[in-house]
Amino acid sequence: MTIGVLGGTGAQGRGLAIRWAQAGLQVVIGSRSAERAQQAAKEIVEVAGGDVTGQDNAGCAAAADIVIAALPWEGHAETLQALAPQLAGKIVVDCVNPLGFDKKGPFALPVPEGSAAQQAEQLLPDSRVTAAFHHVSAVTLADLSVSHVDLDVLVLGDDREATDVVRALADTIPGVRGVYGGRLRNAHQVEAFTANLIAINRRYKAHAGLRITDV
Amino acid sequence: MTIGVLGGTGAQGRGLAIRWAQAGLQVVIGSRSAERAQQAAKEIVEVAGGDVTGQDNAGCAAAADIVIAALPWEGHAETLQALAPQLAGKIVVDCVNPLGFDKKGPFALPVPEGSAAQQAEQLLPDSRVTAAFHHVSAVTLADLSVSHVDLDVLVLGDDREATDVVRALADTIPGVRGVYGGRLRNAHQVEAFTANLIAINRRYKAHAGLRITDV
Repeated sequence: MTIGVLGGTGAQGRGLAIRWAQAGLQVVIGSRSAERAQQAAKEIVEVAGGDVTGQDNAGCAAAADIVIAALPWEGHAETLQALAPQLAGKIVVDCVNPLGFDKKGPFALPVPEGSAAQQAEQLLPDSRVTAAFHHVSAVTLADLSVSHVDLDVLVLGDDREATDVVRALADTIPGVRGVYGGRLRNAHQVEAFTANLIAINRRYKAHAGLRITDV
Repeated sequence: MTIGVLGGTGAQGRGLAIRWAQAGLQVVIGSRSAERAQQAAKEIVEVAGGDVTGQDNAGCAAAADIVIAALPWEGHAETLQALAPQLAGKIVVDCVNPLGFDKKGPFALPVPEGSAAQQAEQLLPDSRVTAAFHHVSAVTLADLSVSHVDLDVLVLGDDREATDVVRALADTIPGVRGVYGGRLRNAHQVEAFTANLIAINRRYKAHAGLRITDV
């Protein structure tokens, strides 16, 4: 199984790619620039080993079986719309958090479609859109001395089989557990909750994550 | 310290009152009907012991040092607006989750003010409004055979001292930990996340709660 990571040169995508490379999955980093993607892939292999290559976003989307959208919120819609043909029929995992920052700290940006994930769903009607990996700490993922990542990954979507596949993908990261988190229409609050985790990190000097109890 | 629980005849307020009564706090149940409040108070004492009385909402708000708004979302604004004089100068803890349900399950309702907590803040400019206790399981709270409630209570607010008091109030419930969760403007996603927890409960047959890791 080949995992494509759109935005794999950013901190969140890079951290996930490092863990999946270490888990033995084939990973293709996607970026606007194929050269930057190849450079990031090379750096990930140096850290984590494994089979990681880089392509431009369209090449990444075409090569992968499952595609992670770890894109900046600015450009999210434009990038996904352009990739709709390559993403058709595939599981797409949106992990974008539309956040703003001001002097009072982080806050959730309003999204006309409801959430980044629902925007993706509208732009990619032929894909199987799920949402997950919102709350991962890029710092923790990239630090392979952390052998147990203490986090539940909430996986949202209306396609049961797709959310099961993405939960299994989360489970490949040591310590992480994929937990079904509801339908895609309930993605907004999961994305926005990242603002709370950032506020918690600032108050407690932590890399906070979530665990769901009694599950 | 006297804790007032507006809506203390409902499941969420009753569950919290049971635990605070057991912890030895003075509790006043508030309801539209003083008689229903007194009846609920009597039932809580039978279960948990302690010092629990009942009054109408205005009497409850006047008698308490800290007031929990465990109200139904319908009537939230109207009830709080009417109580503004009694709530002036006090810490108000909003724990209301504006949710809807349809055949696809639970979902977050849009709130013009952003969240129930921000609505409370606008209606109660002379109170110290915080938000907390959104994710408690009423069933688990009311079951005193559960001696360890496995839950972090996120406490949101812009008044540091008030959030510290509310965190300490959360800590009186065995197993529960009060964790600062961000400013009040980030309350929406915490309220709305209750929809995800309900979806999780349905999928996993659980009484799911949250824990924040690395804190």
